[in-house]
Amino acid sequence: MKSTSFIPPNRTLMGPGPSDVSSRVLEAMARPTIGHLDPIFIKMMDEVKSLIQYAFQTDNELTYAISAPGMAGMECCFANLVEENDKVIICKNGFFGERMKENVERYGGIPIIVNDEWGKKVDINKVEEALKANQDAKIVAFVHAETSTGVKSDPKALTKLAHDYGCLSIVDTVTGLAGVPLLVDEWEIDAIYSGTQKCLSASPGLSPISFSNRSKEKIKNRKSKVKSWFHDLNLIMSYWEGEGARSYHHTAPINALYGLHEALVMLSEEGIENSWKRHQENHILLRDGLENLGINFLVDEEDRLPQLNTIFIPEGVVDAEIRLKLLNDFNLEIGAGLGVLAGKVWRIGLMGHSSCKKNIDHCLNSIRAVI
Amino acid sequence: MKSTSFIPPNRTLMGPGPSDVSSRVLEAMARPTIGHLDPIFIKMMDEVKSLIQYAFQTDNELTYAISAPGMAGMECCFANLVEENDKVIICKNGFFGERMKENVERYGGIPIIVNDEWGKKVDINKVEEALKANQDAKIVAFVHAETSTGVKSDPKALTKLAHDYGCLSIVDTVTGLAGVPLLVDEWEIDAIYSGTQKCLSASPGLSPISFSNRSKEKIKNRKSKVKSWFHDLNLIMSYWEGEGARSYHHTAPINALYGLHEALVMLSEEGIENSWKRHQENHILLRDGLENLGINFLVDEEDRLPQLNTIFIPEGVVDAEIRLKLLNDFNLEIGAGLGVLAGKVWRIGLMGHSSCKKNIDHCLNSIRAVI
Repeated sequence: MKSTSFIPPNRTLMGPGPSDVSSRVLEAMARPTIGHLDPIFIKMMDEVKSLIQYAFQTDNELTYAISAPGMAGMECCFANLVEENDKVIICKNGFFGERMKENVERYGGIPIIVNDEWGKKVDINKVEEALKANQDAKIVAFVHAETSTGVKSDPKALTKLAHDYGCLSIVDTVTGLAGVPLLVDEWEIDAIYSGTQKCLSASPGLSPISFSNRSKEKIKNRKSKVKSWFHDLNLIMSYWEGEGARSYHHTAPINALYGLHEALVMLSEEGIENSWKRHQENHILLRDGLENLGINFLVDEEDRLPQLNTIFIPEGVVDAEIRLKLLNDFNLEIGAGLGVLAGKVWRIGLMGHSSCKKNIDHCLNSIRAVI
Repeated sequence: MKSTSFIPPNRTLMGPGPSDVSSRVLEAMARPTIGHLDPIFIKMMDEVKSLIQYAFQTDNELTYAISAPGMAGMECCFANLVEENDKVIICKNGFFGERMKENVERYGGIPIIVNDEWGKKVDINKVEEALKANQDAKIVAFVHAETSTGVKSDPKALTKLAHDYGCLSIVDTVTGLAGVPLLVDEWEIDAIYSGTQKCLSASPGLSPISFSNRSKEKIKNRKSKVKSWFHDLNLIMSYWEGEGARSYHHTAPINALYGLHEALVMLSEEGIENSWKRHQENHILLRDGLENLGINFLVDEEDRLPQLNTIFIPEGVVDAEIRLKLLNDFNLEIGAGLGVLAGKVWRIGLMGHSSCKKNIDHCLNSIRAVI
C-alpha cells in the first residue's frame, strides 16, 4: 500500500448534491481547528444556530446541526418522535418516502403508506383519506423537495391537515432549504431536517434540523427512552442549549461547522428571499435552454423544484456512457435516475453556489456536445 | 442577526482531543468538493479503507470510516452486535463504560457491569468472574484507552478471555489508535471503533471502525433488523464494498474524508510503529518536566497512555480559572477532569500532531507560569 495526497479534479457539480462549494467555504474549512468546548467555538455554535433559524425562518429553540449527514437528520426525527406502535402516515412519492418507512418500522412505529406516482406531488386528498381511516395516527411525514424526482410538495397544506387530525408533521427538506420558499414557523411545521450539500453549498456531513415546541413536549414526555443514544434529543438539548459550560455529548465536527457557518453567513448576506428568487430565475434559463435542445421535463411546471431539474434522457443516448463522458471530458457531474427512474431520467441540479449563469451555459454546451 | 466570517485563534491543543491538525490536513480539507459517487472519489474511499486497515493492523474487509464522530462509532458497534436480551459484559473503569451501558440498554441488551476504579485498568480477574457467573453472555465490551482517565487496558488478554467464554469483544480505542500498540488481527478483536481527532489528528467528525469476520457473520444472521437505519451495517456494507457502482446509502462527508485521507497518508509515511514510539518518547519528556514541577500522575506508570497524561491539579490552583488563563494568555488548551475526577485532575493530551517537543515546551512553560 502506497497512498499519496489526494488532489481532486475541479468538477462542476450539477447533480442532486453535493453542489459546488465556494472558495469562501473551502477556505473556512481549512482554518485552524480549535477545541469543541472552547468558549470561542461555543460562540460560533450559537451563531450557527441563529443562522439555521434564519434559513428555516423559525424561532424554534431546538434548532441546530446534527453531526452527521441528512439521512441521520431523518433518523433523528423518527427516533425521537415515534414511539412503540405509533401510527405514522408516510407520503411516498419517490425514493425518500421508502427511507421514512424503514425508519418508522425500525423505531417500532406502524407506517401507513400513501402512494403517489414518482414525479407527482403528494396528493393532499389521499392523505386526508388515510387520516380519516386512521384516526389514531400520530404523525404525518412527507418530503418537501423530493431529491429523486425534483417534485415539490406543499408543507403548509400538509401540516395544516396533519394538525386538523391531531398529528405532528415531519418534513424532509434536504434539497429544499434555501432553494424554494420555506417558512417553518408560519407553516407550523413540527420537525424538519435538511442537508448542507444542496442549496446551502457547504460540504456534506451535517444536517440542519428544527423542532417546534409541540415536538419538544412530545420528546420530553416520551414513555420510553429514545432507542438511539446518539440521536436522543433529550441529551443533545443539553449540549446545544446548556447555560455556560456545555455538558459533553460528543465531539462536534469543528472544521465542517466552520464551513457550514460560512455558507450560512453567505446566505444571510444574500438574503433568503433573494436565494429563492435566484434559484427560480436560473431554473427558467436552464429550462429554456434544455427545451431548445428538445429535452422534456418529468415534473409539471408548477410542481418543479427549480434547484433540481429532472429531464428525460434524450432518445438514443446511452445513459451511463454519456454521463461518464460529461464527467471525463467536461468535468461536469449530473445525476442519474434513482429507483424506478434509473436509466430513464437525468437529474440536473442548480443548487446553491451551482445555481449560476456560468454553470447553466457550461451544462447546456456540454449536453449539446454529447447528445 | 449579523454574523460575519469566523476566524478562529491559533490554539495549541493539548486536551483530550481534538489535537492539533497539521497544515497538510487543513489544506486537504479545502480542496474542491467532488461528488460522492465520482469514480475518483470512490477510488479515494478505497484508499481510506486500506489506510484504516493499516492503522488498525487488520485485513478485516468490513473496515471503514463512519460518517459521524466516535460516539456514533460506539453506537454502530452496539446497534449491530446486540440483539434483544443479549447479555453484554461492560468493563467500566471511567466515563465511557457508562456510555456503553446506555447503548446496550437502548438496543435491548442486558448490561452486566464490571466496575474498576477510575484511573485503574480493567481487572481481568473480575471480568472472568463475571463471565463465569453469566455463561450466556454474548459480548465483552471495554475501553482500550480511557479518555476520561488516561489509563490503558489490555485488549489482547481481554479478547482472549472473551473468546474462551464464547463471547465477541467490542473495543473502544477512540483515544488509542496510532498512539499505543494495537494489533486488531493478531489480538483477534471482533469490533473496534476510534475517532479522527485524537492520535490521527484529523478534524473530528468521522469514526474509523473495523469488524472481524466473526462479527460480520453475527450481523448477517441477526434475528431482527438493526434498529438504527443509519447504522445498519448490512446496508452500509453494500455502500463501501459494492463492486463497481456503489449503491446509494448516504452522502459521504467529502471534505472531511479528504482530511482523514491526508492524516492517514501521513501516518503511513511515518510508519505506525514509529508513531507509537514517538508518543511514548514524548510522554517521557512531558512526564519528567511535570514531575520537576512537583506534579503527580493519576495513573500508575505501566498503565499510562502516553498520549493522555492525567495529572492531579496542584494544590491551591483554582481549576477552571487557571485553564481559562492558559487558554486566553497562552492559547493553550488542556482538558478538565470528567465525572468523578472533575475539579481534581487535568488531562494533558500529546496526541498525533500535538505530540511534539515544541508543544511539550510550551505546555511546561505555560503551566510553570500560572501555578
